[in-house]
Amino acid sequence: MNKIIETVPNFSEGRDEAIIKKISDCFCNVSEVRLLDVKPDRDHHRTVVTAIGEPEPLKNCVLNAFDVAIKHIDLTKHKGEHPRMGAVDVVPFIPVKGSNMNECIELAKEVAKSVSAKHSLPIYLYEAAAASPDRQNLANIRKGEFEGLFEKIKDTKWKPDFGPDKVHPTAGATVIGAREYLIAFNINLDTSDMKIADKIARAIRGSSGGFVNIKAMGVELSGRGIVQISMNMVNYKKTPLFRAFEMVRSEAARYGVNIVGSEIIGLAPMEAMIQCADFYLRLENFEMKQVIENNL
Amino acid sequence: MNKIIETVPNFSEGRDEAIIKKISDCFCNVSEVRLLDVKPDRDHHRTVVTAIGEPEPLKNCVLNAFDVAIKHIDLTKHKGEHPRMGAVDVVPFIPVKGSNMNECIELAKEVAKSVSAKHSLPIYLYEAAAASPDRQNLANIRKGEFEGLFEKIKDTKWKPDFGPDKVHPTAGATVIGAREYLIAFNINLDTSDMKIADKIARAIRGSSGGFVNIKAMGVELSGRGIVQISMNMVNYKKTPLFRAFEMVRSEAARYGVNIVGSEIIGLAPMEAMIQCADFYLRLENFEMKQVIENNL
Repeated sequence: MNKIIETVPNFSEGRDEAIIKKISDCFCNVSEVRLLDVKPDRDHHRTVVTAIGEPEPLKNCVLNAFDVAIKHIDLTKHKGEHPRMGAVDVVPFIPVKGSNMNECIELAKEVAKSVSAKHSLPIYLYEAAAASPDRQNLANIRKGEFEGLFEKIKDTKWKPDFGPDKVHPTAGATVIGAREYLIAFNINLDTSDMKIADKIARAIRGSSGGFVNIKAMGVELSGRGIVQISMNMVNYKKTPLFRAFEMVRSEAARYGVNIVGSEIIGLAPMEAMIQCADFYLRLENFEMKQVIENNL
Repeated sequence: MNKIIETVPNFSEGRDEAIIKKISDCFCNVSEVRLLDVKPDRDHHRTVVTAIGEPEPLKNCVLNAFDVAIKHIDLTKHKGEHPRMGAVDVVPFIPVKGSNMNECIELAKEVAKSVSAKHSLPIYLYEAAAASPDRQNLANIRKGEFEGLFEKIKDTKWKPDFGPDKVHPTAGATVIGAREYLIAFNINLDTSDMKIADKIARAIRGSSGGFVNIKAMGVELSGRGIVQISMNMVNYKKTPLFRAFEMVRSEAARYGVNIVGSEIIGLAPMEAMIQCADFYLRLENFEMKQVIENNL
């Protein structure tokens, strides 16, 4: 594959295995598309699909998944712990390799245009694809959920970006957009003191004065008798892993605490890892094409 | 490509562009093979080709290159600064991704068998493919060069591994084998004192008591007024880049000298870079398949 885009669509069905399979099948046996993960959650009544691929074939998979989900999911009968607004609830596109954010925004708009027309489905664009700052945040758009949307959509402030100004009776509305790759990165400390973990988390996360692209909280690893700084790195390009690591190291040292290890949960783009080699080896003029695998 | 093997064949022709093109063309427009580099050297009268690919198609490219080189190169008329023994002088196979050393040894033997039979060409196996320790080192095998081989080959100690006990009249003999990926890794120091560079190079290289898989020497970067530890990392799996870096840092500190930067010349496997991220981030249980690109 020359260009790789990732999509992580969320569907409001986490219990009926036959429907979940019909949805995930949309991403299987398609040339230039790879299904990486399917995570159904019974309590959330929600399934998160992760797939990567070339833009065009990936788009077609997503369109097929919309057809299946809208046919089989009825939000008037849906209850779950997770906030939701649509049968296909949210669809982000993420540039992974050889592609940029603008392409993902375009892809989001193409999908929005296509599904809104075909299914009379209202679409909101979010994150990097948002038309205005108050639509960047998914939680803002989804506030009120499916049930509240019937009133909310009448407010001109919440006119959909694509499709009718009218909620789809069973499929609600969908939020589609483009964002950077999110890396789940945790750092473990040689202390059991949660107060220290909380202080470091506050120091490092954007919401309390730290890095704009880091969400962080302290977590107790009671089995190991230690604490962890659990982070979501929402833009590794601008706020790389090594910077979070060095910042946590520095803050922890202030309490006489050391880093004993870290972990990356799930997947990370090669570039996020190579950035770390580049930083710590103090490489001069290193280019990604010097990685053999990038010549294929 | 599922398996990637690299080959870096050396041909004893560095001046005639038409012949060099005929040789490099053997690696072009072949499905599952990528020609990465062609480096002719007029003084050495030698061309180094770098290509990667799936084992079978890559092997066929190499076999075709043998045909071309043996047809066009006459060692009885060859003079150059670089030691050489054959029209195709040396052919290493290197496991890069999804392949191991045993497969490369097998590939080396298949090529050896095929070209020795087709061209009545004596073949010596070297490095990981060597039949005995005194054949591991290329310099041992090549000592005496083309001109000396007519006598050397009569010694039972230097009976070829494949092919006749008789030097090919124009193409000499070829050394074929398997080895680990070689990374050219240089570290720059904030001093102009070559004595310090030499001392650090001696501390770190295997030949004078350092790491077995590191070859190192001090080099003056007169343009920048600093010195460099220039290294060949001949087995990054067993002796990784970060270990060389940390060792140089430690030795340099003993003289009050700092590392100002480093550089990787040419290509490096992704794994060699990720090892560094893994080390410096103190990652727990990180697996290569967590890199998105490894799921393609």
